[in-house]
Amino acid sequence: MLTYTLEKDRGQSLYISLYRHIRADIASGVLKAGDRLPSKRALAANLGVGVVTVETAYAQLIAEGYARAVERSGVYVCAIGDTARLTVAPLPPEPETPPQTPLLDLSGGGGEDVPFPFSVWVKTMRTVMAEQGQQILRPVDFRGAPELRRAISDHLYESRGMRVPSERIIVGAGNEHLYGLMVGLLGRQRIYAAEDPGYRKITEIYNANDVTLRHIPLDDAGLSVRELKKSGADIVHISPAHHYPTGIVMPIRRRNELLQWAYAQPERYILEDDYDSELRHSGTPVPPLFSMDSRERVLYLSTFSQTIAPSLRIAYVCLPGTLMERFCDTLGFYACAVPTFEQYTLARFISSGAYEKHLNRLRKRYRDKRERLMELVAESPLGKHCRILEAGAGTHFLLQLRSKLSDAELREAAKGRGLSVRFLSDYQSVPTDSGSMIFNYACLDLDRVPAALEILAELCRGEK
Amino acid sequence: MLTYTLEKDRGQSLYISLYRHIRADIASGVLKAGDRLPSKRALAANLGVGVVTVETAYAQLIAEGYARAVERSGVYVCAIGDTARLTVAPLPPEPETPPQTPLLDLSGGGGEDVPFPFSVWVKTMRTVMAEQGQQILRPVDFRGAPELRRAISDHLYESRGMRVPSERIIVGAGNEHLYGLMVGLLGRQRIYAAEDPGYRKITEIYNANDVTLRHIPLDDAGLSVRELKKSGADIVHISPAHHYPTGIVMPIRRRNELLQWAYAQPERYILEDDYDSELRHSGTPVPPLFSMDSRERVLYLSTFSQTIAPSLRIAYVCLPGTLMERFCDTLGFYACAVPTFEQYTLARFISSGAYEKHLNRLRKRYRDKRERLMELVAESPLGKHCRILEAGAGTHFLLQLRSKLSDAELREAAKGRGLSVRFLSDYQSVPTDSGSMIFNYACLDLDRVPAALEILAELCRGEK
Repeated sequence: MLTYTLEKDRGQSLYISLYRHIRADIASGVLKAGDRLPSKRALAANLGVGVVTVETAYAQLIAEGYARAVERSGVYVCAIGDTARLTVAPLPPEPETPPQTPLLDLSGGGGEDVPFPFSVWVKTMRTVMAEQGQQILRPVDFRGAPELRRAISDHLYESRGMRVPSERIIVGAGNEHLYGLMVGLLGRQRIYAAEDPGYRKITEIYNANDVTLRHIPLDDAGLSVRELKKSGADIVHISPAHHYPTGIVMPIRRRNELLQWAYAQPERYILEDDYDSELRHSGTPVPPLFSMDSRERVLYLSTFSQTIAPSLRIAYVCLPGTLMERFCDTLGFYACAVPTFEQYTLARFISSGAYEKHLNRLRKRYRDKRERLMELVAESPLGKHCRILEAGAGTHFLLQLRSKLSDAELREAAKGRGLSVRFLSDYQSVPTDSGSMIFNYACLDLDRVPAALEILAELCRGEK
Repeated sequence: MLTYTLEKDRGQSLYISLYRHIRADIASGVLKAGDRLPSKRALAANLGVGVVTVETAYAQLIAEGYARAVERSGVYVCAIGDTARLTVAPLPPEPETPPQTPLLDLSGGGGEDVPFPFSVWVKTMRTVMAEQGQQILRPVDFRGAPELRRAISDHLYESRGMRVPSERIIVGAGNEHLYGLMVGLLGRQRIYAAEDPGYRKITEIYNANDVTLRHIPLDDAGLSVRELKKSGADIVHISPAHHYPTGIVMPIRRRNELLQWAYAQPERYILEDDYDSELRHSGTPVPPLFSMDSRERVLYLSTFSQTIAPSLRIAYVCLPGTLMERFCDTLGFYACAVPTFEQYTLARFISSGAYEKHLNRLRKRYRDKRERLMELVAESPLGKHCRILEAGAGTHFLLQLRSKLSDAELREAAKGRGLSVRFLSDYQSVPTDSGSMIFNYACLDLDRVPAALEILAELCRGEK
């Protein structure tokens, strides 16, 4: 007769203890295939437990295939094949990753929070919770909640003069998610092209999606259409409104050339990535290619990461009619990847006017910050060693440094002095020394800038 | 001299009106490349507006490449290439999709809400908002918020006896999102296999990810390892805990065979999809392959869609150590796709014990509902025409019908009587008549069931 000491482990039932003991005996070979287990009544009496406990333990063993019941005969051990390991070592604690905080991070990390009307956002969340009730947990259309798509459609009209029907908008869990979806839509066998230099994540994401990606050089009007033609690419991913990191705004002539390139062949597409168009400091934002397109070849992508919070993970893409039909047919089975609650909250934040108000404040803040920064650069010892290149948009500019050191040498030397910096060459597919440092100021703490500029001036002069 | 009637359109500035008029004249050819625009002062006087208005309009035209400024000379029209369309037709309203509500949907849609302690969830949201403050909008680790991964790790230990360090867990925006990420991790060139019959979305998602997918038939122990070997697949996607739609629980012997299959070649992997393991009605859930695996070949996927809400879009995958390292190296650049706020809310919902309490209620409810349904089937005229096949898990069972009609004929006839039904054959890669109807009861309104069963009995008897 089987005899075990049963213990109630961490508040679990006795039958679990019994089930585990028997299972261990089967796994270790103490109980062999074909062995008959004791009758429930007999085992219960032997162990001093209720019959139900044994019954439940046997049922579990049977459910998992360790044993089988033979009618009017009993319960028999099954052959289980090679023994599986059923215990594991205790867990090591998750290592604390010490935050790597440089003295000053000019490359875009850390520092100040991006300003955001948090209290208004929380109030909007509360309103949505109260008004929508259980609706906040119900699934929405695969393209996203109609409320949010309508709010985006209105916002695009008000702020960019774009007319995009809400049923042509797809909401996704951030740009990264949408890039992948668009590869699925346009075809993984096609040849893609991206700007060089360019935002590195774009290259990483196309690589992770296993598509062929060509890097196309820029001239002073942005992506070279001549080079694009030579590349053999079918689809080009560009940021004509404000290229990162050069800051180039693509002029109308080049935009038209690019559209003509797309029209010259069927199935050529332009993925217009308008990641920071809301942050133009002067004038209205440049009209997007999407609005200029008369033949359904432009996809327009934008995100709320830059203006609300990167952690919100809401981006959207506007599709031409034919591509939206194709999306419904081939990818419409995907559920919308953004939680319903976040969609309602954002929809209300936009339609209440709070978003526009926030954008106006944000633009003013970045404009002021940029102006103050330029003064700081001009006043600093670095002023004599550099030139500022910028296009009045976004949250960065370029500092063209005069220095005998290479980009890599400067980066290393800066790191040694507690500064984290990046250069134009960090964004090139084949880095060539540029002397152009990217100056990201969105999160920059201005009080620390003068000291940083002095250090950079010393480094440019070749002092260590 | 240019003369326009400027109007403040929808509250926008005068300069926008002026900019649009000039832009239209350039686009239409009225103003030609090389034309010099009037001086700012002269045009301002002519139009009766301030000099700043003209200056801002010119700046916008220059920023977009419609014009260029020549120092000490003036502003000149640029060549813009082929004219781009800048106006579009007004928007049609979004068509209202009329909800297609059948009298009774046995295929898994509509009907009752899945029970959920909404008020507890909302209270948890409020607590997180109050306690975490602006933290709810900050980005988290690419694998997900440590708080959530720890809560999942503890839950897996308490409920499944699984020991998974939280740093081996990746949080994703739903299963669909994670399936795609795992293809990126394991390789798009590999051959994948899935169960046949099986959950249709799995096939759709692998197809959308452009991988080769083989369909592997089942026997009564689940996926056939013999057929898997013949298929040449490297990676198999299975639901051993409770297969959909057959309800098969894979016995331990087949689990060991499957592990041996994986161990026989390097880079063979098992994707264990435990989509509804929380909903087992009796006994403890079957131990997952992940816990049996001694050679880092099993990935364990689960989701909160089944137990909290499909719209929450939070799923997770547990990776073996080597695969987690590979993920960090190759896909660690992706930001976590789930909003931070939802992650904190779910973490707290789990760690406070509310999730476990909810699961217990949910299991009891489904158990009661299943029992009542079986009584209803037995009492109904259909009782004589069918047999119930089920494994005491999940929220569905199979009704094996005796009828002269084919699955397709029955489906059509049922539709004509207001019933939406699906058959086992609907989940096969090559449908063959099964007579096995899937009875999804999670959302079913029991009051409507007797009438539906009468209709089905009539149809089985060949009455229309």
